[in-house]
Amino acid sequence: MKLCGTSLIGSKAVVGSEAVFKAIDPATGDTLAPDYRGLSRTEVAQACQLAWAAFARYREKSLEERATFLETVAVEIEALGDALVKRAMAETGLPQARIEGERTRTCGQLRLFASTVRAGEWLDVRIDPTLPDRQPMPRVDLRQGHVALGPVAVFGASNFPLAFSVAGGDTASALAAGCPVVVKAHSAHPGTSELVGRAVQAAVAKCQLPEGVFSLLFGSGKEIGQALVADPRIQAVGFTGSRSGGLALLQTAQNRLQPIPVYAEMSSINPVFLLPEALQARGKEIAEGFIGSLNMGAGQFCTNPGLVVAVKGEALDMFNTVAGEAVKSSAGQTMLTPGIHAAYVDGVSQLAGEAREIARGASSEEPHQCQTALFATCAADFLAKEDLQAEVFGAASLVIECEDMAEVCAVAEHLEGQLTATLQMDDGDLDAARVLLPVLERKAGRVLANGWPTGVEVCHAMVHGGPFPATSDCRTTSVGSAAIHRFLRPVCYQNLPEGLLPSALKETNPLGVPRLVDGKRG
Amino acid sequence: MKLCGTSLIGSKAVVGSEAVFKAIDPATGDTLAPDYRGLSRTEVAQACQLAWAAFARYREKSLEERATFLETVAVEIEALGDALVKRAMAETGLPQARIEGERTRTCGQLRLFASTVRAGEWLDVRIDPTLPDRQPMPRVDLRQGHVALGPVAVFGASNFPLAFSVAGGDTASALAAGCPVVVKAHSAHPGTSELVGRAVQAAVAKCQLPEGVFSLLFGSGKEIGQALVADPRIQAVGFTGSRSGGLALLQTAQNRLQPIPVYAEMSSINPVFLLPEALQARGKEIAEGFIGSLNMGAGQFCTNPGLVVAVKGEALDMFNTVAGEAVKSSAGQTMLTPGIHAAYVDGVSQLAGEAREIARGASSEEPHQCQTALFATCAADFLAKEDLQAEVFGAASLVIECEDMAEVCAVAEHLEGQLTATLQMDDGDLDAARVLLPVLERKAGRVLANGWPTGVEVCHAMVHGGPFPATSDCRTTSVGSAAIHRFLRPVCYQNLPEGLLPSALKETNPLGVPRLVDGKRG
Repeated sequence: MKLCGTSLIGSKAVVGSEAVFKAIDPATGDTLAPDYRGLSRTEVAQACQLAWAAFARYREKSLEERATFLETVAVEIEALGDALVKRAMAETGLPQARIEGERTRTCGQLRLFASTVRAGEWLDVRIDPTLPDRQPMPRVDLRQGHVALGPVAVFGASNFPLAFSVAGGDTASALAAGCPVVVKAHSAHPGTSELVGRAVQAAVAKCQLPEGVFSLLFGSGKEIGQALVADPRIQAVGFTGSRSGGLALLQTAQNRLQPIPVYAEMSSINPVFLLPEALQARGKEIAEGFIGSLNMGAGQFCTNPGLVVAVKGEALDMFNTVAGEAVKSSAGQTMLTPGIHAAYVDGVSQLAGEAREIARGASSEEPHQCQTALFATCAADFLAKEDLQAEVFGAASLVIECEDMAEVCAVAEHLEGQLTATLQMDDGDLDAARVLLPVLERKAGRVLANGWPTGVEVCHAMVHGGPFPATSDCRTTSVGSAAIHRFLRPVCYQNLPEGLLPSALKETNPLGVPRLVDGKRG
Repeated sequence: MKLCGTSLIGSKAVVGSEAVFKAIDPATGDTLAPDYRGLSRTEVAQACQLAWAAFARYREKSLEERATFLETVAVEIEALGDALVKRAMAETGLPQARIEGERTRTCGQLRLFASTVRAGEWLDVRIDPTLPDRQPMPRVDLRQGHVALGPVAVFGASNFPLAFSVAGGDTASALAAGCPVVVKAHSAHPGTSELVGRAVQAAVAKCQLPEGVFSLLFGSGKEIGQALVADPRIQAVGFTGSRSGGLALLQTAQNRLQPIPVYAEMSSINPVFLLPEALQARGKEIAEGFIGSLNMGAGQFCTNPGLVVAVKGEALDMFNTVAGEAVKSSAGQTMLTPGIHAAYVDGVSQLAGEAREIARGASSEEPHQCQTALFATCAADFLAKEDLQAEVFGAASLVIECEDMAEVCAVAEHLEGQLTATLQMDDGDLDAARVLLPVLERKAGRVLANGWPTGVEVCHAMVHGGPFPATSDCRTTSVGSAAIHRFLRPVCYQNLPEGLLPSALKETNPLGVPRLVDGKRG
């Protein structure tokens, strides 16, 4: 498939009229053809209008039709073949295995949502049947189901060019919920975005859905995104990116005449707590696992372990030594964009000014290389300096050396909201873990033991979310089948004739969906 | 129990230091002893600090302890006996049967949440067990549960002095979720609030819970409420009241460093659609049912039917005649407060300036009487004048006369978000209803047929909510057991040792809660 540099507004390919930009190969610094031209506000409004027009028909599609559509998107993405992998590698500097793995994950995610749609658990059907003889008043028949919110604006993330971009988790869950999607493509990987966008567009056509179910917008600045979120036809927003970017969209959404939900996944430093027995018994192994997790994808994961917390002493010194050696032998890795690389260099330099350097990775002459960096400081300093909590996006981490477990708890209590919190623990650490756990539950969306936070399983029990500022809305997850709930609202049907009830709520249960009848599972 | 005029901060009774106010008997205009003094910001902060301190312990209580607490609150309210009924009648002008019914509803609601807590459906437990042999990578054990958000600010409503006030639906659902509650009492019924507040306080003591689980704050102006919502320890807000009041709190919540969810139930005119066959066959009966619903509680319900939509013609003329006769024979009813009465008079006078009067109820010399009022206008006018959609709180309604069913649909499409939408329909109206239903599903939280929107069943399937501006967050309900979800967030536990997992998530399922295992019901 030849890249055309066009936005996709419904079934049309549209050449924008605003500023031109191109993808950059971060491994070389070279620009990549073709030109991409930003859309105007008028064109953004056209996409929203099409999405709105499509909403009425798309939300009425059967569960089977919607599931088949999601599966068709996956097939169309797979059909892009090597061209997609090559373009994504060129635009992101990520290695082939990573891109291929991410493609598998993206298509698997679409298929998970297809099976989720069919299973119907998400409808949360509740039936309170009529009680004609109840005193002092009879109860009429009441049935609750869930319906789609409306058109959703999705912002592609730079660090997952497939799994959190055009047909990533936000898009898949919104489409699964019955919401048309208007994607603002991330300017770091426009070619990848166009290819995947065309695959979704093809699936819309093959499934004979209204064209407005999907649009893909290009624009190099912030105007397009702001215009999209401000459009009155948009009913929810999915975003993965920086804290400043997320907060700006949140502000726009709140300033609308009708405020709408914004699901922004923004920043997290993912603390790892090394409990004493585990540190003593497995310090070396843990140190190596830690640096492995830190270096994964050049640290460009929202779940990257940016903070290590432990009680100081010989065991922690040994951990620092082993981790430092592993850092020194860490090769440079190409970062996603020149901008991300510059921000990383800046963040590391700020850390260097405030904390003690343990080690840095190999330096490199290649452009935009992430040089792994590990620092340490005492808990008192960490508690005193708020900016030590700022996320440094990339393979940099900070070890907090505490006087005792009470100070470890004080550090935990001081943390902002996080996506994850990790315990490295052995059997003898159970009491210490019991003290920490209630604090970590308040701070993080996912608490894990004896693993690393990178690697987010796409499943039913996953929570990729967490208290502010990890996300703008901690009541949800952006990964896993529960993400569909972000784009739904409940509707109660009272005393409706069977012929008027949605299929999922009919007394005969033709779709065989799970139900809560009088508060009990059937 | 003697009224003391004090706020309740944890286990203490606190005399405020700010402006004094008194309850007013709206039936006489007389003030009622004792004096209530507003709290200062410092005292608000004390209540929030106590709530925060209580949160850690309260959230850890077993489901059984939490359920027993809710039941104890109900018992303590019932133990207030006639004193509560008399005081509520004096402060609200509502008749004895209504107050007694509301007490039954309030205590039933507390007990419903007790049984909901025990059943554990709200935990939404999801388990994806380990898959050690999965290729290319094993899956680790992942378990999702839900935890409490934190201290919740609840604003009592004027129109339900028991069921939507101090120990009403918001408080019951927040306490059920494991959240301490700080109530800002509505100044229209301070004595009722103090009595119920003391009952909750007694239940806290009897159940040996930390005192900060409940506080009750008095204050005559808006400062107390704003300070409460701005307090960094408050994690969510429940509000029922005016649109301007709800929007002001929403703004405050959004301007915090950490934005928090606001569940504001604000305004709704609850359209009733009279479909042609039903209007033809049962117009008289429907007209009488309509005025019965309109007059209930002097129209002071958020689900009051403030709009009737039908195709013009003889059948609608007959409906208007019968409804008009019923209006004329409607006796005056005392409204809740002098302010609500003044706003009603003002709203009716504005309607009179823009629409044709069908009839008004009996006038009365008694103070603060609601005079029922019914108006009519054509659809073209309604579509052109936005202010005809403004809620007039009280027993006033507007009939929209449409040229045909297409115009009925246009009126439906033009509506703002609503709590309810009602269809009066016969078998022959099924096709017309099918056209309207998708529009109404988008506009309202509850769609009902051949009934009246007043009378909100407290059950599992109820949705008392709806698109903006009916509420500030359409993803939830404020009535029924599903209201508990407003105060929860998911947490995922990855690879945690059985000894560290919350009881509800342990492999052995000691609480016997429902679970989704690998996406399937067990």
